[in-house]
Amino acid sequence: MRQSVLFTKTRREAPKDEVAKNAQLLIRAGYIHKEMAGAYSYLPLGLRVFKNIKNVIREEMNAIGGQEVELSSLQGPRLWKKSGRWDDEAVDVWFKTRLKDGGELGLGWTHEEPLTALMTEHMSSYKDLPRYVYQFQKKFRNEPRAKSGILRTREFVMKDLYSFNKSEKEFRQFYEQCAAAYLRIFERVGLGEHTFRTFASGGSFAKYSDEFQTLSAAGEDTIYLHRGKGIAVNKEVYTDEVLADLGLKKEELEEKKAIEVGNIFPLGTRFSDALDLTYTDEKGKKKPVVMGSYGIGPGRLMGTIVEVLADDKGIVWPKEVAPFPVHIISISGGNADVIAEANRLYDLLKETGIEALYDDRDLRAGEKFADADILGIPTRLVVSEKTMSEGGVEVSLRANGSATLVPESGIVDYLRK
Amino acid sequence: MRQSVLFTKTRREAPKDEVAKNAQLLIRAGYIHKEMAGAYSYLPLGLRVFKNIKNVIREEMNAIGGQEVELSSLQGPRLWKKSGRWDDEAVDVWFKTRLKDGGELGLGWTHEEPLTALMTEHMSSYKDLPRYVYQFQKKFRNEPRAKSGILRTREFVMKDLYSFNKSEKEFRQFYEQCAAAYLRIFERVGLGEHTFRTFASGGSFAKYSDEFQTLSAAGEDTIYLHRGKGIAVNKEVYTDEVLADLGLKKEELEEKKAIEVGNIFPLGTRFSDALDLTYTDEKGKKKPVVMGSYGIGPGRLMGTIVEVLADDKGIVWPKEVAPFPVHIISISGGNADVIAEANRLYDLLKETGIEALYDDRDLRAGEKFADADILGIPTRLVVSEKTMSEGGVEVSLRANGSATLVPESGIVDYLRK
Repeated sequence: MRQSVLFTKTRREAPKDEVAKNAQLLIRAGYIHKEMAGAYSYLPLGLRVFKNIKNVIREEMNAIGGQEVELSSLQGPRLWKKSGRWDDEAVDVWFKTRLKDGGELGLGWTHEEPLTALMTEHMSSYKDLPRYVYQFQKKFRNEPRAKSGILRTREFVMKDLYSFNKSEKEFRQFYEQCAAAYLRIFERVGLGEHTFRTFASGGSFAKYSDEFQTLSAAGEDTIYLHRGKGIAVNKEVYTDEVLADLGLKKEELEEKKAIEVGNIFPLGTRFSDALDLTYTDEKGKKKPVVMGSYGIGPGRLMGTIVEVLADDKGIVWPKEVAPFPVHIISISGGNADVIAEANRLYDLLKETGIEALYDDRDLRAGEKFADADILGIPTRLVVSEKTMSEGGVEVSLRANGSATLVPESGIVDYLRK
Repeated sequence: MRQSVLFTKTRREAPKDEVAKNAQLLIRAGYIHKEMAGAYSYLPLGLRVFKNIKNVIREEMNAIGGQEVELSSLQGPRLWKKSGRWDDEAVDVWFKTRLKDGGELGLGWTHEEPLTALMTEHMSSYKDLPRYVYQFQKKFRNEPRAKSGILRTREFVMKDLYSFNKSEKEFRQFYEQCAAAYLRIFERVGLGEHTFRTFASGGSFAKYSDEFQTLSAAGEDTIYLHRGKGIAVNKEVYTDEVLADLGLKKEELEEKKAIEVGNIFPLGTRFSDALDLTYTDEKGKKKPVVMGSYGIGPGRLMGTIVEVLADDKGIVWPKEVAPFPVHIISISGGNADVIAEANRLYDLLKETGIEALYDDRDLRAGEKFADADILGIPTRLVVSEKTMSEGGVEVSLRANGSATLVPESGIVDYLRK
């Protein structure tokens, strides 16, 4: 894409009311727009990052047998009264609204109830199990404070997967499969080395649930990390009893701030009991379905990548989530040969299927490089009189600044490596 | 995908409270689930159709220079008060809700206001124009009645594009480009011959707006169609004066029911004036930006395809929107050779990149064919003892039932034709 037609512009200053680093940088780079505290819009480059993250998650969920759906946001009271989660006393994040005829509605903040009820229409025998169903769906949560940029918002897309199993044993097997898929996701989006599986409270149906926590000063959570074992314990269950249970010693643990980037949770038969989701086993006996839930917010993941990987010049995107893998920058000073050479390079990459953002704007080098730094595209190709006189293109990496001169004839092979 | 693991099932009866043909068929086929009147969830096969339709629209919007964004659903009153569209008196489809601290919010039912305000941050000079920005965004509309299945719902994804131009002339040029793109979209999703550009009321900024109306008894609109010219007039502007203006004669027009599948609308400077979206022209003069809006609902399009193309056996999907292009059906009666042959065929197509739904279930032929009929996948491949003894695979088309025996060695080429 030619930057001269991209409608967003970078800006020097972040909005004054924005305190979170992730939002400050993403707004300055023109990736997002703040609609109000806790509600952001995604602009072209930001939406590309967001979609790339979704695609990584989707691939990993499909690989473990996930089937994608999309449930409605509008929710009537009926199912939620059955599970005891309709009252604002029980759940304090509901946004409620009303139909023209006065009927009360809520905006879905999670989807156990509607999906469990839906599954009763498609599930009756042991032959119909197991099933794994997920969606990328917009959740609404009436958060009292929303000051963390896109890490905690009042509306956000959540990938929520729900597992439906015949037995606790079958459920546990999938639970571990999904935990492994989550680790692959964090690895692929560039957070692998900063992210740890973390024991957290299991609620009424299990001893523990598992969170995935990324170390960051911006995190709302405190965890106790065992680096050697690569696991952590959330402060909420950091007791002598739990440590003994997990075989961890206090003196081996580091206290760290972290962002919860994923959560997997045994639900037992809490919702299948409430909403009557049963199956008939091989012997003809009716049994409740065993459930689990598995969440990742692609927006929160995007914000976390910015918090953890950005440097003092701007954002640094890992390759798999970057809006474009390559940023072509022409430094022409009006020289028609340089412009022609940069155009040729852009066309060459397009033909070979390498997507590039092409800074073809009539601006000074300093401005272009400052923009490129804040945009954070991983690989930069500079075309200038100097690189042309040296017979090539300067390839540099945003992450570490290393630069190499590559002849144009070798550029495609170089980028594909 | 193997049908034996697909979680949805077909059913003989539609829900009793569902009167619309599109929803009856889509629910019976397991494509959608009714959450409440006017709110539907998309199940795996339905979501695949929905995404295919979105992709067709996205390709055509990108081809005319559209840049994709996604704005927030939550909307504060500020911008909408400026345009005079916050009050429930002025706009009767708002869903309103409240923040914890009591502040009133609305759920976006369209997005002129937030996008126009956003553009003021990225647009100041004639060099920043023209720009074309679109999204696939969930709209909420508090419809008093919602009985048309997925044709008119209380929450739905809308592709809404907004154009930002320097002048009326530049705007008109794009407007016609977009009208042409819309016709390509309706052609590609299989509604081309049933869909007509229709003159409708232009509001305060133009003589006319343009609707795209698909002939269907399920339509809410009445249009007067000139088949020869391929254009129509909406009943709301069907006056002697308008007919004279358009050079149409009453006696040449047919009165028809139709579904509005798209709408393009000149906005003039209504929103740029209200929200102060201006640019400085070549002579340094400040001018308001000229705007237009362009909507298509992919869900409504999906419902319309069902209404118009379904037959008495079920849904008939055009190739470009079908959940899968190919439906493999094994009729084995337990014969291991037939099962092995069908498996081989499924693997072969997968290797060559042809996606298939594979009915590998242990059911009788009659049930499988009835399911295939209601699911409506365009091309069916049947593997049975009979087809094997004849040395091939039976290929039939859902649309007209025509069947041919194709040798397995030639099947990939046959499907690629």
